[in-house]
Amino acid sequence: MDVSTQDVFEMMQPDLDRVEETLVESAQIDYPIVNSMLRAIVSGGGKRLRPILLLLAARAFGSFNERAIDVAAGVELLHTASLVHDDSIDKAALRRGNPTLNTELSTGAVILIGDYLFAKSAILAAKPENPRVMVIFATTLAEICDGQIRETLEAHKLDQSMEDYEARIYGKTAALFAGAAEMGALLGGGTEEQIQNLRALGTELGMAFQVIDDVLDLRESSATIGKPAGNDLRQGVVTVPVMRYAAGLAVDAPQRGIIEGIVAGEITDQVVVDSLIDDIRDSGALAEAEQVARDYVAAARARLDQVPNPAVRSALDQLLDQATIRTV
Amino acid sequence: MDVSTQDVFEMMQPDLDRVEETLVESAQIDYPIVNSMLRAIVSGGGKRLRPILLLLAARAFGSFNERAIDVAAGVELLHTASLVHDDSIDKAALRRGNPTLNTELSTGAVILIGDYLFAKSAILAAKPENPRVMVIFATTLAEICDGQIRETLEAHKLDQSMEDYEARIYGKTAALFAGAAEMGALLGGGTEEQIQNLRALGTELGMAFQVIDDVLDLRESSATIGKPAGNDLRQGVVTVPVMRYAAGLAVDAPQRGIIEGIVAGEITDQVVVDSLIDDIRDSGALAEAEQVARDYVAAARARLDQVPNPAVRSALDQLLDQATIRTV
Repeated sequence: MDVSTQDVFEMMQPDLDRVEETLVESAQIDYPIVNSMLRAIVSGGGKRLRPILLLLAARAFGSFNERAIDVAAGVELLHTASLVHDDSIDKAALRRGNPTLNTELSTGAVILIGDYLFAKSAILAAKPENPRVMVIFATTLAEICDGQIRETLEAHKLDQSMEDYEARIYGKTAALFAGAAEMGALLGGGTEEQIQNLRALGTELGMAFQVIDDVLDLRESSATIGKPAGNDLRQGVVTVPVMRYAAGLAVDAPQRGIIEGIVAGEITDQVVVDSLIDDIRDSGALAEAEQVARDYVAAARARLDQVPNPAVRSALDQLLDQATIRTV
Repeated sequence: MDVSTQDVFEMMQPDLDRVEETLVESAQIDYPIVNSMLRAIVSGGGKRLRPILLLLAARAFGSFNERAIDVAAGVELLHTASLVHDDSIDKAALRRGNPTLNTELSTGAVILIGDYLFAKSAILAAKPENPRVMVIFATTLAEICDGQIRETLEAHKLDQSMEDYEARIYGKTAALFAGAAEMGALLGGGTEEQIQNLRALGTELGMAFQVIDDVLDLRESSATIGKPAGNDLRQGVVTVPVMRYAAGLAVDAPQRGIIEGIVAGEITDQVVVDSLIDDIRDSGALAEAEQVARDYVAAARARLDQVPNPAVRSALDQLLDQATIRTV
């Protein structure tokens, strides 16, 4: 490794500054109160991984289409819109440690603001006037919704296959990483093979990223992740660490009934839930899940030798490291 | 008039059958239960005015782009997605006399299904691979959201200007009629002047349509409109008949306090609300509002002489009649 994680961001800083400007411009609305809330949401401390991935892909093949900045902002705005709806669905009060829109607006207003951000993200994606970019963008949105619908309909069931889990996190997270990489490579003038290679890298990076998110949800304190520890579990959403933990329990282990009760929403006592989370932390389940993430990262890393631009290759390498070593 | 209202639909029937097929194909999802609900929603008895307008515009200039069928289905699906979110926001139990998704699914699932339909509608709009169609489509979605946000934020206030009302119904309804006409004319190969002329006709038709909707909401029985009579008023949404009624009251009329109380959500007693609705019906307010709609229709009709295809011209003429004479 010849650059630190920080360097990836420094290298991309001029592009990212333009993305920020575009984001703030796009998330405007006539109502001053809503406007200031929108501004707070789009500037709310996201890591901008999706725009970074898109812009790296757009710079991987020598030429650079200026409109990639707009699409990068569009991808981040799509992500933001999706978080706004998620937080509304989960009735979450906190996101990245900040109060969500739910704390200040009616559910109806929050739904509409999410829709408005979807619309604005699509307007940004239309800027390059590239029909294929629009198809990727719209398809990605459908995949995100599909993943979220799966998560909602499959909640409260402990007995799930790894395929169910993967289909869910592909939609929830990896689809947008994949779409960002594909749109970037397309705008950057990659060949079809190069575009597909970066799309696959994006998918694997996104899968790894979500698996680690699911580990952090259980491993880190509420203060670190800015929402209650074990939030997924409390919502009845079963993730790979929980699946591995349950698989490692003896058939007659008392924890089996407890975890089934928590997932089903029948056990909500904080002391019981916290104690089970401690048990998961003490088991090997988090390490097993981290190995799943590392396998995805290894698959993605094997694709780097097809990336011609050495600075981009090195930056993508860093981004892959970051997916697995991060704590937030 | 040389064709009956029915004839417009008969002429368009082969196109509309293809729109229906495309709609049913698009609103598919892996989950059988949700799938059957989606099918019921997209086949739920809508009048298909937006696809009809788009297809008429697409046939107005001699050539016809087959992809207009996809965009027509996309426009209807966008409308459907927006109704799904509206019904969720209003917690409506009925739409067109049928139970809404709210009666069977959690709010979260309904929001996600609406999002999924938005995504699918965007995929359909991307089919012609025409960048300008995508820009119109995305901009229209933003305008619809803007209209809905206005309706939410401006609810519960009786004192509103006609401009506030017009901006709201433009977004809520006329924007999609305008966009449908513009996209159709664009795909049909109209000149820029012809495209803008049909867009303006679409706007005026949409404005008239919404004003009449607002009249029907007060004039018709719950059984006829498939939802509670005076639904807008009960939700605190002030429409032009209510504005005209309030403007006609003496300063010290007792109804003034009552209507303010209903709009503010402080008076919910059914007997009082029903009695006020009767009062509005007995006043000249509904007729005054109908005149507003007729003025829009007259403006739209003046644009017909710029439509070269005589069958399309005649069909549009019928559509304009229908906007003002309908009862549902």
